[in-house]
Amino acid sequence: MRFSSVSPKGRHEHENPILRCDAMSQQKADWIIDSKTPRFDADFRKQLCELLVWRRDVRRFRLESLPEETLDRLIKLASLSPSVGLSQPVRFVLVEDPARRRAVLQNFEECNADALSALSSDRANHYARLKLSGLREAPCQLGVFADRSTRQGYGLGRRTMPETIEYSAVIAVHTLWLAARVEEIGLGWVSILDPKEISVVLDVPENWSFVAYLCLGYPQKVDDVPELAREGWEQRRQAESLLVRR
Amino acid sequence: MRFSSVSPKGRHEHENPILRCDAMSQQKADWIIDSKTPRFDADFRKQLCELLVWRRDVRRFRLESLPEETLDRLIKLASLSPSVGLSQPVRFVLVEDPARRRAVLQNFEECNADALSALSSDRANHYARLKLSGLREAPCQLGVFADRSTRQGYGLGRRTMPETIEYSAVIAVHTLWLAARVEEIGLGWVSILDPKEISVVLDVPENWSFVAYLCLGYPQKVDDVPELAREGWEQRRQAESLLVRR
Repeated sequence: MRFSSVSPKGRHEHENPILRCDAMSQQKADWIIDSKTPRFDADFRKQLCELLVWRRDVRRFRLESLPEETLDRLIKLASLSPSVGLSQPVRFVLVEDPARRRAVLQNFEECNADALSALSSDRANHYARLKLSGLREAPCQLGVFADRSTRQGYGLGRRTMPETIEYSAVIAVHTLWLAARVEEIGLGWVSILDPKEISVVLDVPENWSFVAYLCLGYPQKVDDVPELAREGWEQRRQAESLLVRR
Repeated sequence: MRFSSVSPKGRHEHENPILRCDAMSQQKADWIIDSKTPRFDADFRKQLCELLVWRRDVRRFRLESLPEETLDRLIKLASLSPSVGLSQPVRFVLVEDPARRRAVLQNFEECNADALSALSSDRANHYARLKLSGLREAPCQLGVFADRSTRQGYGLGRRTMPETIEYSAVIAVHTLWLAARVEEIGLGWVSILDPKEISVVLDVPENWSFVAYLCLGYPQKVDDVPELAREGWEQRRQAESLLVRR
């Protein structure tokens, strides 16, 4: 295939500057106007596949902090994610205050105990042995919200499906997740939390809807098999079973 | 950083086979047990950034079909996406029946007219000029649902946040989106649809929750600026504004 490759410099002088990927690859995030149409070769394709295979939901972290600028760089990459009507509703809340972190951990423990009590006894024993969050260890913790009240995008695309605001935030989380894994940083998504409680603990505006709580840090180990599969909780299904025809 | 690199062959003989990325990169999807811990270098990092920069929501497609096996390959990659409790709730519905496609298009036109009528007059004029779907041209069309009734994962992680089932499907869409762009295939997410109507049109089980309708095909052109920005509907905000601290 061929595509026209026109420098955006000529066409889009009114636009926001484009992310310069050279700089990103050197651990530094700058924005300049400079780009050309990339081609993705077989080698890149293979490595992207490896990235998907080796991305894990990490719950076992080493204690050392992430380097300065790491989070800013990851969020810049996440900001390139698609969003409904270009609304960019994702809001990241960096949680540093020890009291807030303790409150999140406490909420997790309550919700986790409640989930445990709802399981059948054989599953409950197994569940109790799983490590389901890295909240005690993870050096970097992020609440993720979707701003339902944002005017950015003028409501385009979300009239019949307002939940696309949350979906946009979810995609930003996924981008950040992949970008982190490339840098050998692990990410764990904690969903065993009460959304209303976490919104209070993190003191966010009323119209921000809670999407995820993320633990980030260097993982104790890397793997190409999900921990829930390694622990025998569940196995993956074949991709073929995900598709039907109409 | 160093990580222990142990062959999964020794550890995980009980596991599902791992996706072989060599094969994927050669347009062929096989599953074999064979992997080693990958390292992602600066060059890969740069290219991944370029992929994020050049991924677009495409509404203008060329008419030629996607090659055989393309969709299966993209769905295999999407199946590697994270999902709550390893539940893999995403369900892709390949829509081939012309009558169903017409019904989706009709529903889009009704919802779009409704959205138009809700806008102020200056915005409405602009809105009416935007091309918001490729439903007439896109050779490949996929309904995407989340199976709320799936027992896979035994409910882990979704008791307090059942919407993580939909979020898992959303992430699978995003993975498919990136994988498509690598192959120079465009994807457009249509959300100006009535979820209940689409579920009826596509005749899916009652517990499948509608997440997205995707148009896929070769784009008329590639770009590093969102069409809504090029058309002056909305501009991107700076990434810094997405982060707050607590």
